[in-house]
Amino acid sequence: MINPFTDEYFMKKALQEAEMAFDKDEIPVGAIIVIDNKVIARSHNLTELLNDVTAHAEMQSITAAANYLGGKYLIGCTLYVTLEPCQMCAGALYWSQISKIVYGASDENRGFVKMGTQLHPKTTVVKGVLANESSELMKRFFAEKRK
Amino acid sequence: MINPFTDEYFMKKALQEAEMAFDKDEIPVGAIIVIDNKVIARSHNLTELLNDVTAHAEMQSITAAANYLGGKYLIGCTLYVTLEPCQMCAGALYWSQISKIVYGASDENRGFVKMGTQLHPKTTVVKGVLANESSELMKRFFAEKRK
Repeated sequence: MINPFTDEYFMKKALQEAEMAFDKDEIPVGAIIVIDNKVIARSHNLTELLNDVTAHAEMQSITAAANYLGGKYLIGCTLYVTLEPCQMCAGALYWSQISKIVYGASDENRGFVKMGTQLHPKTTVVKGVLANESSELMKRFFAEKRK
Repeated sequence: MINPFTDEYFMKKALQEAEMAFDKDEIPVGAIIVIDNKVIARSHNLTELLNDVTAHAEMQSITAAANYLGGKYLIGCTLYVTLEPCQMCAGALYWSQISKIVYGASDENRGFVKMGTQLHPKTTVVKGVLANESSELMKRFFAEKRK
């Protein structure tokens, strides 16, 4: 039997969140958190609306997932996020001990890989899932901003 | 005339916040944010109460100060925090472009200095202000935990 719950399947949901951010004139990044193939958190970047640099999609999903689970550790959970997490979000993911991070486009300037931010040793990382869709959305956002 | 608004003066207020965390059975870290010698945010670690790894003192103060200022950038502000910020908090401070960070005790294991987390190039850092008071409070907390 074919497993419908692929990384692409869930990343599409994160992309839907990124499109919601786009429609609100926010830098279009979306995230969801999944446990046992169930989505327990979904969020998108709200730094402009909330006037808050901490309101990245990942941060909101970490808080929401912990609230759902009733505990602050996200063991067994997977984060899907359309853009590579920054230092702040990777630092939060470190504390959460999340089991898996799947991201779309790389952020060569401010992503955690280049910045050298440390994740929890038990966290696995998959990159490049629907990366083109994610970066196209970002490019379209900044192209419209420059108009 | 003597200036009463020294780094020690403000760090004492951050220590009061750390003591409030201690009394709530939270790891005792406190923070305040100051602009023009005026305290515009005060907070303490609430990760246990809120079941949320993102609820560090610094994160809450960044959000509160931005809310007070009506903008997300903390230019002209100083953060006083009793313990050296972690990767997550330093990453948030990077985005905030805060002008100055003053911390008390160093965190040799998980502090941003050892972790290599990048701050904004315009941010200046002062360390070791009331470091003994801060680390004594931490030691007392963990000693009581071990009982």
